[in-house]
Amino acid sequence: MLSKAQIKYIQSLQNKKLRHTERVYVVEGEKIIHEYIEGNYPLGNIYATADWMEENRALLLKKKLSAVEISNKELEQISSLTTPNKVVALARMPEIPSLKGMESPLIDSLLISGLHLALENIQDPGNLGTLIRTADWFGVSSILCSEDCVDAYNSKVVQAAMGSLARVRIYYTDLHPLLEKASLPVYAATLEGENIFTQKLPQNAIILIGNESKGVSASLKAVVKKELNIPRFGKAESLNASIAAAVILALLRKG
Amino acid sequence: MLSKAQIKYIQSLQNKKLRHTERVYVVEGEKIIHEYIEGNYPLGNIYATADWMEENRALLLKKKLSAVEISNKELEQISSLTTPNKVVALARMPEIPSLKGMESPLIDSLLISGLHLALENIQDPGNLGTLIRTADWFGVSSILCSEDCVDAYNSKVVQAAMGSLARVRIYYTDLHPLLEKASLPVYAATLEGENIFTQKLPQNAIILIGNESKGVSASLKAVVKKELNIPRFGKAESLNASIAAAVILALLRKG
Repeated sequence: MLSKAQIKYIQSLQNKKLRHTERVYVVEGEKIIHEYIEGNYPLGNIYATADWMEENRALLLKKKLSAVEISNKELEQISSLTTPNKVVALARMPEIPSLKGMESPLIDSLLISGLHLALENIQDPGNLGTLIRTADWFGVSSILCSEDCVDAYNSKVVQAAMGSLARVRIYYTDLHPLLEKASLPVYAATLEGENIFTQKLPQNAIILIGNESKGVSASLKAVVKKELNIPRFGKAESLNASIAAAVILALLRKG
Repeated sequence: MLSKAQIKYIQSLQNKKLRHTERVYVVEGEKIIHEYIEGNYPLGNIYATADWMEENRALLLKKKLSAVEISNKELEQISSLTTPNKVVALARMPEIPSLKGMESPLIDSLLISGLHLALENIQDPGNLGTLIRTADWFGVSSILCSEDCVDAYNSKVVQAAMGSLARVRIYYTDLHPLLEKASLPVYAATLEGENIFTQKLPQNAIILIGNESKGVSASLKAVVKKELNIPRFGKAESLNASIAAAVILALLRKG
């Protein structure tokens, strides 16, 4: 049973500003919440229907968690999904230091090795979520988002990212000075770049992916080491941003 | 200016059965419709706001097309998008013969060379659209969908597929007998398969992608030549279906 104030509070977390003030976001659905619980990711309240409670009693007990039982009507009220799925939980955003206030040597130490993804002005939440999930699969150390990317805690990002949102480090920052000074080589995915199939690719790098329709901006192209193109064999005008990132990450990992 | 009957007709095409009876689907948005017009794909009526008409007068003239001017209110009524984008058009579905009634030698000739994608029970329209767009990029000859896949002319598939929907041949059929008899080798993307990075991959093949949460079914696994796994370097539980397909297609094309 939920009070009106609780319902209003959960609904208010669909607003970016409010959820960032609270440092809390909404996670939904059996599969993702199972992943959060099993992974011991920081969860606040869990709101679930009677049948979810019944099915997950042992898991809650094992993890020393409790859940608030809600009706289907209440679930509909607090869910952002068209077809709400049994359980909604609040999750705490990780404390990720701002790169802006960070001393230069510290930033350098972040970007001195490993594989990183830099995202410029990604607008579609489904794309960002899939990018986060894909980055997690390929062992990407951090995701550097330009400040005009969609918010990573938007409900559609959360759905597409699955549990990966709780594992991958995501920074929002001004990309230009960062990529300009990075010790790691920066490779941008562009339609005019060199054929990625014939390049020798490093294991440690920053892969830059541009906006869904405009691609990588001229100002960022100016600071990359090389532009890479995924060869086209058919007629599509472009590849989806998350698809391009995945292909590049796979080719890098294959070596 | 639209009549009530016209508005109702366009809205009715959001219903799968009705659009298949009519063999007509709805295409929306400046970018996609531009691609349809430039590619000379079979379009029926175009409904557009005054500013789109103004901007595209020369293009319409060049392509000998006309458009019906509509108000923003009418656009909202006929659009399936949350943020309607200036123009909506009706497109004719291509006449694709059913593989079911087709003689076996004819089917064999379809699947004797080239790269093909077989999709089992893909449910998310965004995934199917991205799969179609990605298949088009990598020069896939045909997409074989199991009959329980989401409809390719669903509005969300159309948005994600961009113009590729009008270029790629998509069949809906019973996959089991088809894959069992295909001359081409069938490779399935699974979490238990062999490391794709260390395999010698053919240029001509059928790549089988399974349902978003259940993967490839046991009955289809039984008829594939080999199961392939994309190695995991991080902790994500799985890859998105369209991401897995893209990585496999890219690795095949790289050779």
